[in-house]
Amino acid sequence: SNEVKEYENYFGLTLLDRRSDKRTDSKWLSKKQSHPTTVYILFSNLSPLVTLGGGIESSQQPEIKLCRLYYKDVEQCVNQTEESTLIFLGVELQFHVNLLAACNGRVLQGEEEDGLVAWFALSIDSASAETFKQKHEDCYFLHPPVPALLQLPEKEAGVVAQARSVLSWHNRYRFCPTCGSATKIEEGGYKKTCLKEDCPSLQGVHNSSYPRVDPVVIMQVIHPDGNHCLLGREKRFPPGMFTCLAGFIEPGETIEDAVRREVEEEAGVKVGHVQYVSCQPWPMPSSLMIGCLAVAVSTEIKVDKNEIEDARWFTREQVVEVLIKGNQHSFFVPPSQAIAHQLIKHWIRMNANL
Amino acid sequence: SNEVKEYENYFGLTLLDRRSDKRTDSKWLSKKQSHPTTVYILFSNLSPLVTLGGGIESSQQPEIKLCRLYYKDVEQCVNQTEESTLIFLGVELQFHVNLLAACNGRVLQGEEEDGLVAWFALSIDSASAETFKQKHEDCYFLHPPVPALLQLPEKEAGVVAQARSVLSWHNRYRFCPTCGSATKIEEGGYKKTCLKEDCPSLQGVHNSSYPRVDPVVIMQVIHPDGNHCLLGREKRFPPGMFTCLAGFIEPGETIEDAVRREVEEEAGVKVGHVQYVSCQPWPMPSSLMIGCLAVAVSTEIKVDKNEIEDARWFTREQVVEVLIKGNQHSFFVPPSQAIAHQLIKHWIRMNANL
Ligand SMILES: Nc1ncnc2c1ncn2[C@@H]1O[C@H](COP(=O)(O)O)[C@@H](O)[C@H]1O
Ligand SMILES: Nc1ncnc2c1ncn2[C@@H]1O[C@H](COP(=O)(O)O)[C@@H](O)[C@H]1O
Repeated sequence: SNEVKEYENYFGLTLLDRRSDKRTDSKWLSKKQSHPTTVYILFSNLSPLVTLGGGIESSQQPEIKLCRLYYKDVEQCVNQTEESTLIFLGVELQFHVNLLAACNGRVLQGEEEDGLVAWFALSIDSASAETFKQKHEDCYFLHPPVPALLQLPEKEAGVVAQARSVLSWHNRYRFCPTCGSATKIEEGGYKKTCLKEDCPSLQGVHNSSYPRVDPVVIMQVIHPDGNHCLLGREKRFPPGMFTCLAGFIEPGETIEDAVRREVEEEAGVKVGHVQYVSCQPWPMPSSLMIGCLAVAVSTEIKVDKNEIEDARWFTREQVVEVLIKGNQHSFFVPPSQAIAHQLIKHWIRMNANL
Repeated sequence: SNEVKEYENYFGLTLLDRRSDKRTDSKWLSKKQSHPTTVYILFSNLSPLVTLGGGIESSQQPEIKLCRLYYKDVEQCVNQTEESTLIFLGVELQFHVNLLAACNGRVLQGEEEDGLVAWFALSIDSASAETFKQKHEDCYFLHPPVPALLQLPEKEAGVVAQARSVLSWHNRYRFCPTCGSATKIEEGGYKKTCLKEDCPSLQGVHNSSYPRVDPVVIMQVIHPDGNHCLLGREKRFPPGMFTCLAGFIEPGETIEDAVRREVEEEAGVKVGHVQYVSCQPWPMPSSLMIGCLAVAVSTEIKVDKNEIEDARWFTREQVVEVLIKGNQHSFFVPPSQAIAHQLIKHWIRMNANL
């Protein structure tokens, strides 16, 4: 088939290679921690340290980017281990490193120097964060993280999603859920081990030792006539905003079943065919948004007021007006970085050349 | 497009409507618990109580099915609340209920009787399980659950996946991970609430109160020539078994990135295009297996011996021999109920009429 023969190169999409094999190599990790090329990104209360990027145009939102710090910048915070949490995020993709080495006219591979540029996330307490901001006036902690997080460049947003999810896991999962004892952090921040010697969680492999990822379905529901879509709004949304319905996948459920259950629960509409489109990690705190198109087989809407405030069928023309032409006077949808926006656009593009 | 206009009715695929709205209706739940039509399925040590079904043919594996019990059968165990856990699974789909009512020549809707047939999972301690088995000689607890679970009819397997995932969550998550205190079960078994009054987990909504679902990618990796696929084996597999590579999705990762990372980590093969095919809940203890086709852009295999024992390219002919013709002398793959089997078959069928 065409799809299988489509040999595209997608490696450019991520910034880092996670190198999970290095998580258990404590010698390597501790060497990299103080290595001068190592990049640190800083967090306080789950908010990343950012700065304004160049090239601000009056018509655009100001572009923000992560502050990339070095060991010398964070040395004091790292060693103050009581209050700070350190996560190994990965290494810059080999492609970049090789390019750098070639530019410098030397090969970095060797026993001592593997040439890998490691990245760490470091979470510090509020007092240290205050001190830090006073020393670095052009930097600030991006807060509240939503929807501000969406202003980060796509690749950096991925790194923040990774770091923020793991850090909020450590924040909320301080004690062993199996026995209630204290835990210690291991494997570069990706494992928590119970400190009680005879805890059953230490026998065999258990998910309680690993970070959580909560799969969520988010769906563009299409009317049986093909020319309307179902969008809803929650009470907490800004006035006028409508978006795709969404909900957590439950134990024992497929993606497709979860889509059908959620649409019926929230809007009373029955769904037949479901098709996966794309997904997006969402670090609030650690969801994986799985985006689908869903074809309705019934049209009457019965809103469950406990879950959402409103749900309506919108015509294709109404959506084109808002999404493509940018006339947001009647309603609006989330910004282009959000998967909901992409799903709605995917549907618009399916039957039109835009 | 064709897919969107394909108005199929998929409702027959699930046995129960989860009716999550009823989880907070404690009056309804307690009424249903002792209602004579309510169905109970029993668990001991996460193994479901089953019995041999009819129609055993010599050529087939014996068919097993869940024991459907009633309140009178389990009354003693339910009330012995200390040691037993009760989970509300849902109600039989309205379609079946209406059919039943029609057959009986009456309408069941009304104030007192909503006509809904509720299902519960009940987990009991080993001593009660022993007593129970002595009273019901034709029933036994299906143990170990893998691969025996695959012998259940598909609809019942879904119910077992749901129940087993939630029960194993209660087993492992007895204490509040945020503060280490004891917890109580609420909302029909779908919520755990910390018993310490000032615990931060009680402020706002947190995933620590809800069951875990761990998303896993499982992928049929296709050689750039289109005529070979990559299958691997772990040490713990039965001799001769090969299957698709798989691994947990990490925080901040998309499905597609996780596929590329896992294939490169485990087998050293680079993947380009990734396409979602289908998924399967896997209650060991609570995974969602997300099945994909992945197109390799490199072919040299470097096995990571920490993760797997072997990985090889198999020709299309080799796979057809094993999967379609049933000649399993050189190697074999998991049974047809497993998503790995379905993914491999999906690839075989893509370019052939079988
Ligand atoms: N949620 C999780 N549950 C169990 N293992 C996990 C989880 N997340 C990551 N892992 C890692 O995956 C390994 C088991 O993978 P597998 O052999 O595929 O079952 C463990 O040794 C862990 O290092
Ligand atoms: N892992 C989870 N994290 C948070 N809420 C969950 C989770 N699983 C189920 N829920 C339910 O989903 C509701 C929040 O959904 P939402 O409004 O879509 O964020 C909560 O009130 C819970 O009842």
